[in-house]
Amino acid sequence: MDIRNQHYNLGEWNDLIERSLADSNSEPLLNLAGDPDPIYDAIFVGGGAAGRFGAAYMKAMGGRPLIIDAWPFLGGSCPHQACVPHHLFSEAAEELDRMRWFSDELFFPKFDSSRASILELVKVFLAGRGTAHAFMNWQTKEQLEAEYVLNAHATIIDKNTVEAAGRRFTTKNLVLSMGARPVDPEIPGLDLDGVYDFVSLVEELDYEPTQCVIIGGSKVAMEYGSFFNATGCETTIVSRSPLMRTKALHHVDEDLRTYVVDGMRKRGMTILEGAHPVSVNGTNGRATSVTVRLESGEEAELATDFVFLGTGERPNVGQAQEALGIDVGETGRVVVNKRMQTSVPGVYAVGDMIDGPMEMFKARKSGVTAARNIMGEDLEFDFTEYPDFLHTTYEVTWVGLTEAEARAAYDDVIIIQMPPYVEGLDTPNLPLPCAEGTMLYAFRKPELSGFQKLVVDGTSRKVVGAHHVGYGAKDAFQYLDYLIHRPEGLTIDTLGWMNELFLNPEHFVQLSRLRAGRKRLENL
Amino acid sequence: MDIRNQHYNLGEWNDLIERSLADSNSEPLLNLAGDPDPIYDAIFVGGGAAGRFGAAYMKAMGGRPLIIDAWPFLGGSCPHQACVPHHLFSEAAEELDRMRWFSDELFFPKFDSSRASILELVKVFLAGRGTAHAFMNWQTKEQLEAEYVLNAHATIIDKNTVEAAGRRFTTKNLVLSMGARPVDPEIPGLDLDGVYDFVSLVEELDYEPTQCVIIGGSKVAMEYGSFFNATGCETTIVSRSPLMRTKALHHVDEDLRTYVVDGMRKRGMTILEGAHPVSVNGTNGRATSVTVRLESGEEAELATDFVFLGTGERPNVGQAQEALGIDVGETGRVVVNKRMQTSVPGVYAVGDMIDGPMEMFKARKSGVTAARNIMGEDLEFDFTEYPDFLHTTYEVTWVGLTEAEARAAYDDVIIIQMPPYVEGLDTPNLPLPCAEGTMLYAFRKPELSGFQKLVVDGTSRKVVGAHHVGYGAKDAFQYLDYLIHRPEGLTIDTLGWMNELFLNPEHFVQLSRLRAGRKRLENL
Repeated sequence: MDIRNQHYNLGEWNDLIERSLADSNSEPLLNLAGDPDPIYDAIFVGGGAAGRFGAAYMKAMGGRPLIIDAWPFLGGSCPHQACVPHHLFSEAAEELDRMRWFSDELFFPKFDSSRASILELVKVFLAGRGTAHAFMNWQTKEQLEAEYVLNAHATIIDKNTVEAAGRRFTTKNLVLSMGARPVDPEIPGLDLDGVYDFVSLVEELDYEPTQCVIIGGSKVAMEYGSFFNATGCETTIVSRSPLMRTKALHHVDEDLRTYVVDGMRKRGMTILEGAHPVSVNGTNGRATSVTVRLESGEEAELATDFVFLGTGERPNVGQAQEALGIDVGETGRVVVNKRMQTSVPGVYAVGDMIDGPMEMFKARKSGVTAARNIMGEDLEFDFTEYPDFLHTTYEVTWVGLTEAEARAAYDDVIIIQMPPYVEGLDTPNLPLPCAEGTMLYAFRKPELSGFQKLVVDGTSRKVVGAHHVGYGAKDAFQYLDYLIHRPEGLTIDTLGWMNELFLNPEHFVQLSRLRAGRKRLENL
Repeated sequence: MDIRNQHYNLGEWNDLIERSLADSNSEPLLNLAGDPDPIYDAIFVGGGAAGRFGAAYMKAMGGRPLIIDAWPFLGGSCPHQACVPHHLFSEAAEELDRMRWFSDELFFPKFDSSRASILELVKVFLAGRGTAHAFMNWQTKEQLEAEYVLNAHATIIDKNTVEAAGRRFTTKNLVLSMGARPVDPEIPGLDLDGVYDFVSLVEELDYEPTQCVIIGGSKVAMEYGSFFNATGCETTIVSRSPLMRTKALHHVDEDLRTYVVDGMRKRGMTILEGAHPVSVNGTNGRATSVTVRLESGEEAELATDFVFLGTGERPNVGQAQEALGIDVGETGRVVVNKRMQTSVPGVYAVGDMIDGPMEMFKARKSGVTAARNIMGEDLEFDFTEYPDFLHTTYEVTWVGLTEAEARAAYDDVIIIQMPPYVEGLDTPNLPLPCAEGTMLYAFRKPELSGFQKLVVDGTSRKVVGAHHVGYGAKDAFQYLDYLIHRPEGLTIDTLGWMNELFLNPEHFVQLSRLRAGRKRLENL
């Protein structure tokens, strides 16, 4: 179906996408310039965050990219199954959490857990996800002017040739941006009904879980677990490593971790750390329990009607490895250098196909890095340092070094935090920090009002780490990351002279100012 | 009462403050080093944000400050009557608003407006405000080590002498930091019961308002009005100027203004712009209506049981002007230079006593500026440019130039915004922007999911303005303000290469990236 000259509005795009998804024989959607046998600068195999941003950047630079995606929409798994539903569910979790803590207090009615439904929120997501898809198809065509073929499976013939929609496309370069999928632990019973991961959750859930066992200790495990628990589904997390002490997360400050994990337990979650899943057990084809080997060595059987796998993801390398002979690492990630070049010249890999965090900034910027190198720039993208976050019923955000890492690296480490860094003060009843999102907590349940810590090298006076649990600071950490990692860094003096917007969710500006007058810095 | 050697914890401080407030004959609280007849580097008359931060900074630099305050606590009006209750009420407004829009949808029960009470939230604030007071007394004594005399009225004798608590204190410099108080419009009827400002609201409200007329169009009017309305109190704002087009607010983008004011109307508020209050009318000593001259010239009588004054504030110059002969401007603000020096050498004025926005950053930094100049630094504080914000049921934040201001200043202005800058797209049904705090809106009521705009000079590629309505971006604007006002500015290229934390409340990083590849920038 040639849509080149169709300028669909969002509603029309939505209809077309929904029709395409509903019909497995639906036609490919061709948005192609129409010249015979073009040679593209790059074909992006996969139009998720990495492919779409890479192609958009290449087009903006004057290059000629083509995106091919098996789905009838751009944007990939994020708006369809991954980050967007996760954020919707996390917002619901935050809201449910507040309604629970304040049940029958102030303007909050008695909390009615029968209203809080995982299944209903999944349906809300499904009913609405098409609009984000429609927007990305529209924007990429009308504003970003990139060519694409959607609803068409790509077969890589060689590094200059891709087949899709019954046609052959020729390209100078290939950018693999096929994303990743959840990977299952190797235990029996995962084929039973009632076992889900974040993909099948949104695609297949058809009943309301009442008890949940989560296998794995990943971000996904913590985020979805916090959501399930907030709806009233009794939730147990079974994790080999202590939560937030997995290899996938770096720079997790121990005080932050304690606040977060204690907070999950305080909300009724059972968290079994050092525990190994043994099997999922069932009756009549349906999961009814999970057998777990506890840290003590004993086995326990956890009754459940819902098992959720949060054990990580693995790239969709598919037939690309066979067709191209690219190097793939032990974890299934495609090996690339800092230009996103694979072992085969002219072939790039980006997004969740390569090492590093499976986060949006890396996906998009790795796609752009490939595009810029293809277009002749010599650009390296180093994602070894980055700001990170996760959601429980809080937003948890961090960047730079932990207190312990800083103490190992510097002689004179200064901590500025809220509640303050002092012994003997009654901090659980201290309504600080407080800010938008924690004002009601601060006034009524002060121990829930969050945690924040700034780590400073006292000698250079530079901020080397920042850590926050609460609401409303996540956006700021994008800029803090930039500021502390720029060559001149961010001194406590510069930070303390910024213009705070009171009540700022993190109080770093004003707390820094209270100490910046000192030649020799001190904790606060 | 000499408390120098008492190391009270927060609970003990709280008790002492409450006892002092309750008893008009309570003793002054003396936290003094104890040496005979000290000469201070500065006496800060008033221990609010400006005085406390100024004194703390001076002490940190090795100077010797003394704070004197009539209240038994430090921190001034902010935690007692002003910004802290405002933030508590604004958070309640946001929450009530969400509960109203989602009444009987999803996990939200049918909204019961009888539960939402202004009076109850005032009581929540009153019950909790002591802890913030206690913390500031504790922190200033134990961590910041500044001397103070509290619960003692200061009388300025001359620029080197202040009397308080029956003693004379000698100082090299005087810093006036006595704050401001609400100023009433000049109309009859304000002495009736049922007429409040933000001070008397928290101190004196003793019934539940059902109808409210707000006189004035200030931030306070918009913020408290949004709160009253969210509780179910039928609210009318009577403002001479269109909202957000007052002299006190600069750089208000027209699209942002429209989104905000339309949003207030959409929530049932009546906003009478170009309207002048004529009188408050009453029966049996109680306000029952407000007479207003409408823009058309007609008069209208608005029935009400609650009148709220949001017409601005005026400094507490008190006897300082008489005793010192300092210059005071027409609006009652003390005249100072950029070093916070008044017309009398050795006398400084800071915080709400001087021109400029009555905001926290200015209060604290002006206090610090005075301290640093007194200590021998040559430091100017220019607060003509700053990031600004207000709350309705949204957080509204802006910095730099509006689109119109930018078009007047630059030839090639580029707008990057969400919903996108394009005609003919069905943007009211577009669930973008979305992010934490607007996910549920985006999926169910997309027209409520906010607005954001970045203004770029296409020639230099520098960001010259940023504007946001939604949640979670306020903290970031502190850093955006710094970044766009630093000498090298912030180009769309640098911004577009930052590491976004998806779903970032403002999408400026990734939207910039979608355009940054172009040599000649375009709108998005």
